[in-house]
Amino acid sequence: MQTITAGISAELSECSYPIHVGSGILSRANLILPHLIQKKVAIVSNTTVAPLYLDKLIATLESHKIISVPIILPDGEKYKNWQTLNQIFDALLTNQCERSTTIISLGGGVIGDLAGFAAATYMRGVPFIQIPTTLLAQVDSSIGGKTGINHTLGKNMIGAFYQPRMILADSTTLDTLPKREFNSGIAEIIKYGLIRDHAFFDWLEKNMTKLVARDHDVLDEAIERSCKNKVEVVAADEREHGVRALLNLGHTFGHAIENAMGYGVWLHGEAVAAGTMLAAKLSQRMHLIESAEVERIQRIFLQAELPTIVPKLDAKKYLHLMERDKKVEGGKIRFVLLKSIGEATVCSNVPIEILTETLEDSPVNA
Amino acid sequence: MQTITAGISAELSECSYPIHVGSGILSRANLILPHLIQKKVAIVSNTTVAPLYLDKLIATLESHKIISVPIILPDGEKYKNWQTLNQIFDALLTNQCERSTTIISLGGGVIGDLAGFAAATYMRGVPFIQIPTTLLAQVDSSIGGKTGINHTLGKNMIGAFYQPRMILADSTTLDTLPKREFNSGIAEIIKYGLIRDHAFFDWLEKNMTKLVARDHDVLDEAIERSCKNKVEVVAADEREHGVRALLNLGHTFGHAIENAMGYGVWLHGEAVAAGTMLAAKLSQRMHLIESAEVERIQRIFLQAELPTIVPKLDAKKYLHLMERDKKVEGGKIRFVLLKSIGEATVCSNVPIEILTETLEDSPVNA
Repeated sequence: MQTITAGISAELSECSYPIHVGSGILSRANLILPHLIQKKVAIVSNTTVAPLYLDKLIATLESHKIISVPIILPDGEKYKNWQTLNQIFDALLTNQCERSTTIISLGGGVIGDLAGFAAATYMRGVPFIQIPTTLLAQVDSSIGGKTGINHTLGKNMIGAFYQPRMILADSTTLDTLPKREFNSGIAEIIKYGLIRDHAFFDWLEKNMTKLVARDHDVLDEAIERSCKNKVEVVAADEREHGVRALLNLGHTFGHAIENAMGYGVWLHGEAVAAGTMLAAKLSQRMHLIESAEVERIQRIFLQAELPTIVPKLDAKKYLHLMERDKKVEGGKIRFVLLKSIGEATVCSNVPIEILTETLEDSPVNA
Repeated sequence: MQTITAGISAELSECSYPIHVGSGILSRANLILPHLIQKKVAIVSNTTVAPLYLDKLIATLESHKIISVPIILPDGEKYKNWQTLNQIFDALLTNQCERSTTIISLGGGVIGDLAGFAAATYMRGVPFIQIPTTLLAQVDSSIGGKTGINHTLGKNMIGAFYQPRMILADSTTLDTLPKREFNSGIAEIIKYGLIRDHAFFDWLEKNMTKLVARDHDVLDEAIERSCKNKVEVVAADEREHGVRALLNLGHTFGHAIENAMGYGVWLHGEAVAAGTMLAAKLSQRMHLIESAEVERIQRIFLQAELPTIVPKLDAKKYLHLMERDKKVEGGKIRFVLLKSIGEATVCSNVPIEILTETLEDSPVNA
């Protein structure tokens, strides 16, 4: 097992917290107990994950006399809304959960976002622990304190920055993950190589076949190196005023794809992969990156069995959707572009003609 | 005009912010402009306050080319819920408000809590300015960063700590406040004297007749001294781990009264006044405070035309309601008790018999 310590920039943070990564660590109560204030926790999970891992977690805690209040939600991005959040509040209040009751999320990104936002806002903030059970959540969404829900007019529009006290990433929970969902998580792993870690990108090119086959040694190393990258970026910029924006490589296009196709039709990582290819092509048109590097990027996504072409939509439709993004400032869309593999930059001055050309020239799904 | 600088303890805060107190300062654009990031604001108000002051505020901003998006909500504590909060989010999204659009609250405590919670959670946090227009909001609820909404199972159960960039308290807006509501605000002013400022309590005893008559000099001084007291307490303890709990003098009983009678039947300050009397009597039974001081406290509340007796309820009903309070820890109710006028203490070990005796012995409304 590897433990990474995530520290947030001093002026904002309450504390630093550990991220434990390893195989079979879900049953190690000694990792959880030091972070509980009272002998009661609320575990937020969903109807897919709960049957697989909830009993194990409850038993682990029970053997140390910790009482669990399970809160089981329906599974899916479409439930990341007010109604589901209120289900959590109802259960917390009905079960007399207090300010010192810890909320534990057990599930993927949606569960982490919902449980984290509930923890941020129940009684104005209660302790929170993340136990991510998808690759995407383990390498990306569980780290950094972003929590929230969707609004009918936009994704993640309502939320809070709220740091967990601990993250426990047990890679054996990925064994039960459907192939498409597993591969979707790889998109975010590749992202770290692209925006700031050339050596990691090289390593991923060499090890992608094993990673896709879920070789446990390769998988654990990929998770650890991803977590370290994410932790470093977030530590430097908790509230996304600067360098953290680079983590959104491919996401402005990606969110537009998810929104246009209806949430859940394209998985997040799939949309990010295709969105990243579009960002790479835009970077090439802006004379920032060489075509040979764009081809390397395309190859690694194909190795990871991820889509590299965006769905067919009118360029105007993409533009309209992207203007709704949270990252818009003063009416200008900010794009993350690549200067090379391992180096990214934010650009809010992409000429509209180059943007439209890139959108219209991209090969499209028929 | 007086300006107080509110600083929050270094480890948690993003910055300190000014609180401007004075007569007629709502039209002074130079107080607002330095805190805006872009030339657009969203103003959250209600159907009672908007007709009185919204046009004035919009005109002030318009003369400096600031565009206002007005969001007018129904008036009343019963609207401090999810549905009303969502009305704010709908309006913000429909009007393309961005991360750098400032939300301004124009109204009393309910509007401040709703607008503040919207600011804390819209796009995970946007800039926020408070313009409180009730006495209670000017001396208490606008300061300290508590925001939130009610849940059907309890008051203020969902919320966030979120600091404004500036508070503008124009005492002339109190001229239009109904008498009952004005007096209700005095309960919190008296509270500061009781928990930490004996000299202020003495001054209030001497000036209460003028304060009730809304003499502007006395009123401005009462607001300033209250703000300073609140700022000092919050600065020492933003997240209510310690000394901030003293601000809840009378509130555990008070919340039980508000809840039992139905929100809005007793005004918050009225419930706090009667709750504070009960806390004083409990303090006396615990041999903490002398009966002569309890009588002084009763006299000043009567001078302020506030209730000093709690509504007739079974002691068990009070106990049950208080156990639901956010301030309960490990199943124990924490009471703020008085050691003397000007000194308070938190006690979680009040024997149940003494508590029951105090509740049953209190004179009650027929």
